[in-house]
Amino acid sequence: MKAAVLTIGTELLIGQVINTNAAFIGEMLTKAGVTVTESVSVSDQPDDILDAVHRLMQKNDVVITSGGLGPTSDDITKALFCKYFKTELIFSDETYQNIEFIFGRRNMKLGELNRQQAMVPAGAIVLKNSLGTAPGLVFEKDKSILIALPGVPFEMKQLMTDGVMPLVKQKYKLPEYHQKVFIVFGIPESHLAERLASWEVLLENNHAELAYLPSPNGIRLRVTLRNISTLKADVLFEEFHASLKVLIPEHLAATEDIPMSRIVGKMLLDKKLTLAVAESCTGGYIAHLITSIPGSSVWFRGGVVAYSNDIKTDFLGVNNNDIMQHGAVSQEVAEQMATGAMIRLKSDYGIGITGIAGPDGGTPEKPVGTVWIAVATSEKVISKKHVFGDNRERNIIRASVMALDMLRKEILLND
Amino acid sequence: MKAAVLTIGTELLIGQVINTNAAFIGEMLTKAGVTVTESVSVSDQPDDILDAVHRLMQKNDVVITSGGLGPTSDDITKALFCKYFKTELIFSDETYQNIEFIFGRRNMKLGELNRQQAMVPAGAIVLKNSLGTAPGLVFEKDKSILIALPGVPFEMKQLMTDGVMPLVKQKYKLPEYHQKVFIVFGIPESHLAERLASWEVLLENNHAELAYLPSPNGIRLRVTLRNISTLKADVLFEEFHASLKVLIPEHLAATEDIPMSRIVGKMLLDKKLTLAVAESCTGGYIAHLITSIPGSSVWFRGGVVAYSNDIKTDFLGVNNNDIMQHGAVSQEVAEQMATGAMIRLKSDYGIGITGIAGPDGGTPEKPVGTVWIAVATSEKVISKKHVFGDNRERNIIRASVMALDMLRKEILLND
Repeated sequence: MKAAVLTIGTELLIGQVINTNAAFIGEMLTKAGVTVTESVSVSDQPDDILDAVHRLMQKNDVVITSGGLGPTSDDITKALFCKYFKTELIFSDETYQNIEFIFGRRNMKLGELNRQQAMVPAGAIVLKNSLGTAPGLVFEKDKSILIALPGVPFEMKQLMTDGVMPLVKQKYKLPEYHQKVFIVFGIPESHLAERLASWEVLLENNHAELAYLPSPNGIRLRVTLRNISTLKADVLFEEFHASLKVLIPEHLAATEDIPMSRIVGKMLLDKKLTLAVAESCTGGYIAHLITSIPGSSVWFRGGVVAYSNDIKTDFLGVNNNDIMQHGAVSQEVAEQMATGAMIRLKSDYGIGITGIAGPDGGTPEKPVGTVWIAVATSEKVISKKHVFGDNRERNIIRASVMALDMLRKEILLND
Repeated sequence: MKAAVLTIGTELLIGQVINTNAAFIGEMLTKAGVTVTESVSVSDQPDDILDAVHRLMQKNDVVITSGGLGPTSDDITKALFCKYFKTELIFSDETYQNIEFIFGRRNMKLGELNRQQAMVPAGAIVLKNSLGTAPGLVFEKDKSILIALPGVPFEMKQLMTDGVMPLVKQKYKLPEYHQKVFIVFGIPESHLAERLASWEVLLENNHAELAYLPSPNGIRLRVTLRNISTLKADVLFEEFHASLKVLIPEHLAATEDIPMSRIVGKMLLDKKLTLAVAESCTGGYIAHLITSIPGSSVWFRGGVVAYSNDIKTDFLGVNNNDIMQHGAVSQEVAEQMATGAMIRLKSDYGIGITGIAGPDGGTPEKPVGTVWIAVATSEKVISKKHVFGDNRERNIIRASVMALDMLRKEILLND
């Protein structure tokens, strides 16, 4: 079964909003065995929307749109679809009651515009939006269906989960589809590809598709198998995994698509060990990556964002003379931050990180992008210097993931 | 001048990667006055790529693609474009030297696959990639051009900035285009639209386009003016701003498209005041939002991620009896965290935040999503309870931005 995703809104074309909706819709469809053929974004202009709808409806069984169902004047999609599907808007009591309920929960009164939101196209299936005021709408034409969802991400997500996917699974017989992701860290893509030449042959012989997906979180190797049973797929994935372990033992970080913070978290949880972090240049990002994971409070004690030198000394016990002598960005300071975090926050492991995130603040000896990372255990402290580039955002992300990978290797060593 | 963006890679369709490239390319083109008509993502399948290229080349002056130029076996775009544009690959000394330079900087040896990366289509303009091994390529056909860029985001960004934009600006006469964004906080979209009915008329009378863009960072009102001088546009934007200030004085947070952390940072910088944060449920995200801003070290002292109760008492001086009596998620604890951050990290303002991010950990009295936020100054502490939903990621983001908005209002009061 083939589907296309159409995200509507000029904000997507001009780069004001990053299109997370298309990714979410694509992922849900793919996991159910639907082939996503295309993902298109168009402006709020009626002609652009209708051209895209018309083209995609002819090539796909299902077209899912998001955006353009809100109450404000730039949201025109509902009326437009009515015209295209030759129907008209009628007042829906059920939808109006839902809007009343949503507003009641927020202790707000309904405005005149909200009445318009309760108008739905006659003949369309209405999918209830339990988190917002604009319902999902399902239209049918020439054996293809169009499903129109609101653009607000959390409303769209709820509608996809509770409304769209049950409908799609009921309406279409979906094929078997299996996917496995291996996370590889610390090796450039071209080198990895050379080391995996024989592995690629193994995959090809088993009709497995392979993709290399580089990211700040390492390279993801995505393997896809189609039209075989789950049992057979599991056996093959296990064979691929065993072969990979032999080829790149030091670089294989995970056998599922999870971020480095979760990989480290699983290891710590297994061993009943804890972590604390002392961050300067990453400014809380490592703590954020960790605390994004539900249940991380079991193995994460907490952290100090030591943006000023006196916080490094007062809160982490870094020696002020060392800051004076070697600078805040130095091996000595990183190591003392790691140890200080471990001791003062009472954890088994401590991470210390100090650097120049940029874009300014570099010197000839310590250019922008210079970062010292240290990992402390009760027995030793290890540290390493990295020199990244001059992009602040990228430096923060790379330094954070590098620190977590350094911890991962250290935990492995202590196995 | 019309352009389309074509991002290539199955990972985009199946939701494994969020399409940040399309947003970046769209933003750069728009700011130069180019109209972006469409943004399309297709799989790595040759037919899908060529269909999209063919369709978009007929409707646009410029098509920019990203993805598919890497060294691994799933990257097929270069050969494909050669076929489509009826040319062949030749070895480029210049490109090979650049690859040697890139690898030398990383202290790595070149592999056989890297030689293939130095093959470029005869007749194509080659744009040097100073951050990676795959160059940008410019093809021409029937008055339209196609520009192929690598998919790695930071390489693509550098090529857009240094290679593509100078070329586009030189080749095409681009129209005047002006855009202004107002950030509105603390009012739902439908209510805002009702309060801005007269404002919308004012904009329409002046041929200004308006879009409402809701985000966790507030609602962005995007106003666009075309084909008038910068001087005239500035006068009109000033008029729109003055009118908006009268209509929604309490909700207008900024007159440019910046996040709440930057709004607050500007205010603190102006007044030479500083901030420290004590975070529990947001787990470092507020510190991260702040430290993402270059130069924030001037007004941000640092923070404590107090994920455990004893860190709240030891590092922030929260009274343990209050934790026992009222719970870690309580007004008392939030206020003491804010005050503790302010006093112990020696700042003018302190933020304290404690809550249940979810998805688990709620009780009937304190459901998942319950968050207490406090802001401390040397004179007082204010605090407020929020009850968000059960989505951890969303709760972290909303609580963080709410805390910064609470600080913003407090700074305004002290004016």
